[in-house]
Amino acid sequence: MKAWESNVRRVTPYTPGDQPNRPGMIKLNTNENPYPPAPGVEKALREFQTDCLRLYPDPAASVLVEALAERCQVKPEQVFVGVGSDDVLALAFLAFFHSQKPIVFPDITYSFYPVWADEFRIPYRTAPLDEAFRIVKEDYYPENGGVIFPNPNAPTSLALGLAEVEDIIKHNQDVVVIVDEAYVDFGAESAVRLTERYDNLLVVQTFSKSRSMAGMRIGFAVGSPLLIRYLNDVKYSFNSYTMNQITLRLGVEAVRDEAYFQETTAKIKRTREEAGKRLSALGYRALDSSANFLFVTHPEYSAKELYEALKKEDIYVRYFDAPRVDRYLRITIGTDEQMEALYAFLERYRPGLSQRRERKL
Amino acid sequence: MKAWESNVRRVTPYTPGDQPNRPGMIKLNTNENPYPPAPGVEKALREFQTDCLRLYPDPAASVLVEALAERCQVKPEQVFVGVGSDDVLALAFLAFFHSQKPIVFPDITYSFYPVWADEFRIPYRTAPLDEAFRIVKEDYYPENGGVIFPNPNAPTSLALGLAEVEDIIKHNQDVVVIVDEAYVDFGAESAVRLTERYDNLLVVQTFSKSRSMAGMRIGFAVGSPLLIRYLNDVKYSFNSYTMNQITLRLGVEAVRDEAYFQETTAKIKRTREEAGKRLSALGYRALDSSANFLFVTHPEYSAKELYEALKKEDIYVRYFDAPRVDRYLRITIGTDEQMEALYAFLERYRPGLSQRRERKL
Repeated sequence: MKAWESNVRRVTPYTPGDQPNRPGMIKLNTNENPYPPAPGVEKALREFQTDCLRLYPDPAASVLVEALAERCQVKPEQVFVGVGSDDVLALAFLAFFHSQKPIVFPDITYSFYPVWADEFRIPYRTAPLDEAFRIVKEDYYPENGGVIFPNPNAPTSLALGLAEVEDIIKHNQDVVVIVDEAYVDFGAESAVRLTERYDNLLVVQTFSKSRSMAGMRIGFAVGSPLLIRYLNDVKYSFNSYTMNQITLRLGVEAVRDEAYFQETTAKIKRTREEAGKRLSALGYRALDSSANFLFVTHPEYSAKELYEALKKEDIYVRYFDAPRVDRYLRITIGTDEQMEALYAFLERYRPGLSQRRERKL
Repeated sequence: MKAWESNVRRVTPYTPGDQPNRPGMIKLNTNENPYPPAPGVEKALREFQTDCLRLYPDPAASVLVEALAERCQVKPEQVFVGVGSDDVLALAFLAFFHSQKPIVFPDITYSFYPVWADEFRIPYRTAPLDEAFRIVKEDYYPENGGVIFPNPNAPTSLALGLAEVEDIIKHNQDVVVIVDEAYVDFGAESAVRLTERYDNLLVVQTFSKSRSMAGMRIGFAVGSPLLIRYLNDVKYSFNSYTMNQITLRLGVEAVRDEAYFQETTAKIKRTREEAGKRLSALGYRALDSSANFLFVTHPEYSAKELYEALKKEDIYVRYFDAPRVDRYLRITIGTDEQMEALYAFLERYRPGLSQRRERKL
């Protein structure tokens, strides 16, 4: 090892899901939206004046902050925007979990939480989900350095009711509580309204799922003006200009088209309900999802083998090789057509036949 | 103070320069390029398929990394890209300055360095520029936790020769040395070639100045494969998907048009040489710039008053209300037409008349 390496921050980085991109493939592995962004997004892109790119963007991202404030019915000083909700969450970990006491999050949850804790040297403990994969709110009541959980949780797809979310916040008035609502628009109740009563509550959402803009990198947070000011201070001390001009312009269009948003999220929910029935008829069991994905198991089949078999058919789903969840697959809700291809394969699928199929391909 | 506030990381954030944006104004205050991005950038934007935005971008940013590797004549594993050079530098501070010993940078330099040190609780000491505002290389030789300096330096505009840069690196083999080359394309010699010999050297550049894309947020670093791997580990532990799809596509076009890049940087250098002469004829003195700005003083006039007087004419330059530099203005090189408007004002300008002019406007 070179001497200079002793000064390097060593981390075990987060591993993003596979991002293959081949024509004809069915990509149900990273919870993307199967529908394109709102039509206004394309129009704004076509009309964008590239000459403006020589100038810095507005560091306060005001146009987007204001559009989100209007949509969430809060004041602009209660809104923070970042480069995807990962950026918002990373900065929130850095800003708000600056304690010697361990922060708390579920044992089965978004796998980035322990990575951020490790990166910023934040102590943490995990609270185990119960045997039905539910968050047990009482686990978050003992003294801690901060709380974070997704609602709905991932990869389980299960949502807590707003009363339970509020119970957790009530019991944690001396620390910051972050509710990560990446999937909230597909059926859970948002805690945004609670930010009026709890100035230590930060609610984080994203454009990557319900607004079909994973490729644009937009996330945001809603909280009390004081909380948002602290978060902005840390952000301005990291990178003042994170949101580029095109992102700001296109993001505004996505927020403004409420009708398109309602229509596409409703379509995904209908497809999800249908998927639950179809998979059940085939002997699979899916947890009761409030998200744009299903967490699915089969009493007899190996999840890993099924994952591999699907991959050979160019159908990508997510498999987690980890304790407690390794009998499950996380399947993103696609278009009805994509889902039909999935059902058709599952109808044909017999474990043990995968070897023979491999040779044929 | 609320109890939860005791867990908040307190920082004194960086204050970005004013970003006014009015038709007709002359904006020479944040070192933007007066010319639009390469023509291919506009074409790529018009052809971009917005439907793709529903998908995550490539987390490895491969198309842009490969284009930069080819341009810099290094291997792709020697290139790192980020959301402007601020993002690259912030992550490099986090990754490489993880020591108890103080890092070293000039006392007069990019004002973000102490902000990042403060944000990440990195101890630092500053090395004073000499009376001619030059970096004194020997100041960087004593034991330290890391070294960073811009070349050319800002706001002074002065460049170190490559031999002096190498001397600093040679004397700092046990720590990481970062050379921040935001302005290098306007006349200084890049240290990129030295990354072959020194695996502890990170060279950082940006698309914001010489490639006219401040509004797009693209920065990059070149270093040894080992250094870049450590930097990527920290980046993937912060935010896996920082570069959005449009940024990647447009960035590639900007890198590929070498002729346009040469033409516009040459134009700016010509305008800068002319500006030096014109300002000198008016009694001003500019340091010998290797950047796209001039650091200018007048033996009799107050820099602050002149800054205010220019602002009233809708000509924005940068004034730093700080010891040693408060008799100087930093003036970005604009188009020849913009510069003529500046000279015309300076010809008319008599200190003390500014009050009367205010009333007229």
